[in-house]
Amino acid sequence: MTLTLDRLSLNQATVKYADLGEAIEVCVANGITGIGLWRDRVDEVGVESAFQMIAAAGLHVSSLCRGGFLTAADHDQFAAAIKDNIEAIETSAALEADTLILVCGGIPAGSSLVAARSRVADGLDAIADRARQLGVQLAIEPLHPMFAADRCVVSTLDQALDLAEPFPVDVVGVVVDTYHIWWDPRLESAIHRAGDRIASFQLCDWVVPLPADMLLGRGHLGDGSIDFGPIAAAVEQAGYSGYVEVEIFNADVWSAPAAVTARIVGDRFAALT
Amino acid sequence: MTLTLDRLSLNQATVKYADLGEAIEVCVANGITGIGLWRDRVDEVGVESAFQMIAAAGLHVSSLCRGGFLTAADHDQFAAAIKDNIEAIETSAALEADTLILVCGGIPAGSSLVAARSRVADGLDAIADRARQLGVQLAIEPLHPMFAADRCVVSTLDQALDLAEPFPVDVVGVVVDTYHIWWDPRLESAIHRAGDRIASFQLCDWVVPLPADMLLGRGHLGDGSIDFGPIAAAVEQAGYSGYVEVEIFNADVWSAPAAVTARIVGDRFAALT
Repeated sequence: MTLTLDRLSLNQATVKYADLGEAIEVCVANGITGIGLWRDRVDEVGVESAFQMIAAAGLHVSSLCRGGFLTAADHDQFAAAIKDNIEAIETSAALEADTLILVCGGIPAGSSLVAARSRVADGLDAIADRARQLGVQLAIEPLHPMFAADRCVVSTLDQALDLAEPFPVDVVGVVVDTYHIWWDPRLESAIHRAGDRIASFQLCDWVVPLPADMLLGRGHLGDGSIDFGPIAAAVEQAGYSGYVEVEIFNADVWSAPAAVTARIVGDRFAALT
Repeated sequence: MTLTLDRLSLNQATVKYADLGEAIEVCVANGITGIGLWRDRVDEVGVESAFQMIAAAGLHVSSLCRGGFLTAADHDQFAAAIKDNIEAIETSAALEADTLILVCGGIPAGSSLVAARSRVADGLDAIADRARQLGVQLAIEPLHPMFAADRCVVSTLDQALDLAEPFPVDVVGVVVDTYHIWWDPRLESAIHRAGDRIASFQLCDWVVPLPADMLLGRGHLGDGSIDFGPIAAAVEQAGYSGYVEVEIFNADVWSAPAAVTARIVGDRFAALT
């Protein structure tokens, strides 16, 4: 895959402690033209201002994080989740984001894996129309199976594709995030199957040992166990030609200055090509 | 599945700090007739003495842990692993264990996931003849994908079955361990496919949040997120009628007296039926 710098996007979570202004600044300073946004940081300045800041800097929004959390067994909680997702869809449209990423949610107390998975399908049914109306492509993100209980019952790319299948490609796609699916023995065939359902391609490495907070066990590209070449090649063969986001949750990366992190992200990305 | 007490086996790792004598004692005291052994505890008394102690107590060895670790890229290390596995096969035969469990190994430094997986197949080729000669059934254990980098590159039941397929069923089987594969969206079809390749069925629960040492995030049956009924039913439909082991790695469980742990194991197992 030609991972040229013009395809790199910095996910805002990689520079967690930077506000939107600083995140934009370090992108521009490092020749990074894409940015993946998080709703909390967007809300700090307001959606309209955020869009103006990003446009003025010449950046493009490769994704908005995030919608999802559609597994509530309680009726009111499920309804609140739908409402929140509709708002996220509207924000995504206003930011002209390439896609709205969905982290689907874990198993609520007293429920089961099977029931929670079924509610994800119900939730997609409930929000897909609004996405279609606004031209927003949703992206179901399979999370690593170690998060199946408490964060995301969608654990493989194939499962995400099964959930996406009833919907048009431009309404419901999937995320290929190396951190979450690198281990999958069926990954290559799943990426091939995904084809133009791939709405987002995210990179970060798997470092061992994982830290106490499993969420933060992610590393700069090259610091861990993932062989990015074959995955990137498969994503390219599947036809994906959009931005490639680097998204790293790691306490050490976060505590580094945003400018340093953005430079390393760019260097490591360039080293992959 | 009729999880009657006569099918329960206590894996010795569940009472980690008990020696073989005490482990046998708490099994007998709780009406548990099967025991899953670990080689280090067997070696403490010697294989022959261990077998005599177990036979005298009227117990049956449902599994021996463990062989495997077949992914070394270094020639000498790989050869040493083969030698160790041959010894484990001989120990398994001497103990009349139902199966020898294989944890296949992680990614060595400088190697890749794909290369490591290929060496597992090479390793099976190198040890299968000795297993066949001695009538020992090997059991490939898929470990949770969170261990793919550093412990086991075999991450799903389907992948274990792909590795087992070239060999006769009575030489290479697979382990169904709820902790490692409960999240798999294809689990039911994989268990159906496994059929009489199922050499071992192990139970333990998935508790959240995981502790700092991921290896120890396992709980007594009922303390976590796993719905055991459908998995047990699928295993029964696949034709498995052997022992059902409870194997729990958990610092709190380990620090409890072995007699208490064995009683809880029996009670929770009975509550599932």
